[in-house]
Amino acid sequence: MDKSKSVKTQLMILFGENTDIEGIDVKNACFGGTQALFGAIDWIKANHETDDRLAIAVMADIAVYAADGPRCTGGAGAIALLIGPDAPIVFEDGLRACYMKNSWDFYKPIGGIASEFPLVEGEESLNCYLSALDACYATYKKKTNKILQKDRSLSDFHSILFHSPFYKLVQKAFARLVFTDYVAGQISLPNEQKLEKFKDKELSDTCSDREFASETRIASLHLLEEKVEPNMTLNRRIGNMYTPSLYAELITLLSRIEDVQSFNNQRVLLFSYGSGLASAMFSVVFNITPETTSAFEKMRTVSKNAINRLDQREKHSPEVYNEIMMTRQKLVERKGAGIPSASLNGISQHLFPGTYYLVKIDDKSRRVYDQVQ
Amino acid sequence: MDKSKSVKTQLMILFGENTDIEGIDVKNACFGGTQALFGAIDWIKANHETDDRLAIAVMADIAVYAADGPRCTGGAGAIALLIGPDAPIVFEDGLRACYMKNSWDFYKPIGGIASEFPLVEGEESLNCYLSALDACYATYKKKTNKILQKDRSLSDFHSILFHSPFYKLVQKAFARLVFTDYVAGQISLPNEQKLEKFKDKELSDTCSDREFASETRIASLHLLEEKVEPNMTLNRRIGNMYTPSLYAELITLLSRIEDVQSFNNQRVLLFSYGSGLASAMFSVVFNITPETTSAFEKMRTVSKNAINRLDQREKHSPEVYNEIMMTRQKLVERKGAGIPSASLNGISQHLFPGTYYLVKIDDKSRRVYDQVQ
Repeated sequence: MDKSKSVKTQLMILFGENTDIEGIDVKNACFGGTQALFGAIDWIKANHETDDRLAIAVMADIAVYAADGPRCTGGAGAIALLIGPDAPIVFEDGLRACYMKNSWDFYKPIGGIASEFPLVEGEESLNCYLSALDACYATYKKKTNKILQKDRSLSDFHSILFHSPFYKLVQKAFARLVFTDYVAGQISLPNEQKLEKFKDKELSDTCSDREFASETRIASLHLLEEKVEPNMTLNRRIGNMYTPSLYAELITLLSRIEDVQSFNNQRVLLFSYGSGLASAMFSVVFNITPETTSAFEKMRTVSKNAINRLDQREKHSPEVYNEIMMTRQKLVERKGAGIPSASLNGISQHLFPGTYYLVKIDDKSRRVYDQVQ
Repeated sequence: MDKSKSVKTQLMILFGENTDIEGIDVKNACFGGTQALFGAIDWIKANHETDDRLAIAVMADIAVYAADGPRCTGGAGAIALLIGPDAPIVFEDGLRACYMKNSWDFYKPIGGIASEFPLVEGEESLNCYLSALDACYATYKKKTNKILQKDRSLSDFHSILFHSPFYKLVQKAFARLVFTDYVAGQISLPNEQKLEKFKDKELSDTCSDREFASETRIASLHLLEEKVEPNMTLNRRIGNMYTPSLYAELITLLSRIEDVQSFNNQRVLLFSYGSGLASAMFSVVFNITPETTSAFEKMRTVSKNAINRLDQREKHSPEVYNEIMMTRQKLVERKGAGIPSASLNGISQHLFPGTYYLVKIDDKSRRVYDQVQ
């Protein structure tokens, strides 16, 4: 059987003439994927009694920076999550804690700047991320108190997953959660006397405090190695994928599970952040039953395969990467209108069979795609 | 009490530091508002057992065309729908029929074209709208058959509301639905012998057929005057508002209701369309009970006020309008970066107290707003 034809047929079923598919693009920097996920969960809960379809949240991004920006931190990744009732991973009801604020920490301006590269205010963006984290964790605790009549702490979770632009920020973020638990009297730490003096400070004043960062890092290192670091394999080897970043950690976590049964009822805490800003903290619990085991096994297999595929990547020099980026940039800025991108650099040779790729942007700004045979 | 301060305080509560608000912008031409509405409905259904907050779907657009485009058809409007459980207007479960297709009928290109004006393929866009309508109505009928064990027809609805770029298209659209009912044997029409010859044609081949349009118009005129025309007051006097367009008809309908009790259990069919394209047909039923009457009365009052406010508008010449548009265009294209828009044309004098308006776009493309005192 011709494999590329099979892919085409599937896509036509999904995107053909008579489609009754609901949902449109959801965009908000790195948070867009999480909102799509929330929408998919709500759709299933609200509609599954009258509609037996499943929902898909597809998270994909063009995570690229200008040549003079932090280009080396950008990565490429896409993740799709299939959402349905009675699943092996359950999103906990009522425990979505959001925080939204107007900020200009990282954004893609429209009008006048004919480029797809973002403007990044590095320091501002880190502070926004950490403040959003603090606010979400405070709200998450309040919600657990209201719904479960107990303030949850990090000890309730097998793993804590974070949106991860780069690992250092995740370390810093995790350390703040540990400190928050410590102030609430929910945890004992090795260097408590060093942390004492930060207890009376406003948490928001500590975002750029180096001593605070250093001491909370020391305080949280043993927990970091247990609950955070083991789930970073994909993120550390790929770089920032934007929307899929947080969910790549879930995939790494799934790939690590050996004793399936022992994982039943384990909880995971997730923190999603998108500049601008939109953020949320929420939790999932594993639900391994005779009915869900087969789906869970599939998830594990897919996840292990994702990790294994890291070694199949082709290595290219920064010069080649920059050249490919320049081709794309010309296309997007319409300086290359009419010139097929793939033929310019032979990009299509490096794509999987069945992949759609941008061929040109015509004189009416319409995008034309072709498919790898 | 200073009224502008009161507005500011409310906004700070909504958008201040400690916000646990969920949801981000949803954009897809004129369909974005409907998707936000669907998301709000699903959110309430999925979360109201653990969360007593309500949801708001805010629909607002910059419905403007270039000076050489169909500028006279553009209007300005914004509508917010408050969604909660046990409401006087109920969205019917399982009866959302969607149709999505890739098309370039009307779009705002990014990259290279530093303008917010859309590119419009007039003929193409009308055909897309009508094909989407046909597909949604076919799917809607199928769903009623599956869920209610009966194919609904237009006779089941008090009113039919359409996304309305201009009224002629709505007339054409309604006529097609009437023809579809006729082919299904669900309705008798005055000029049946003239319609007979179109029965065997593919419906999709009739989109640009003038004779078809003319005969179905004659066939449907009496029903148009009963179920469509009376709800067009806002749309005809404002012009195309994009996302709020469909919901402006719902407001007109609410403003018309005199005998509240007789409206209980009445149904309304809605068709939403966004170029690109995304579309949906769905239905609501009025639920007037002792518990919902007070909320329903509020809706009626708000709706009547909206109609009355039409007469409070200020009249300006096309020249003044074009001048204001040019100020805005300069700002958006960043040619006027740093120049306050409001002071250029005294725009702020014409805004309600409390209104936020764009003051400038700075050299980093950040937008700065001020508020009318």
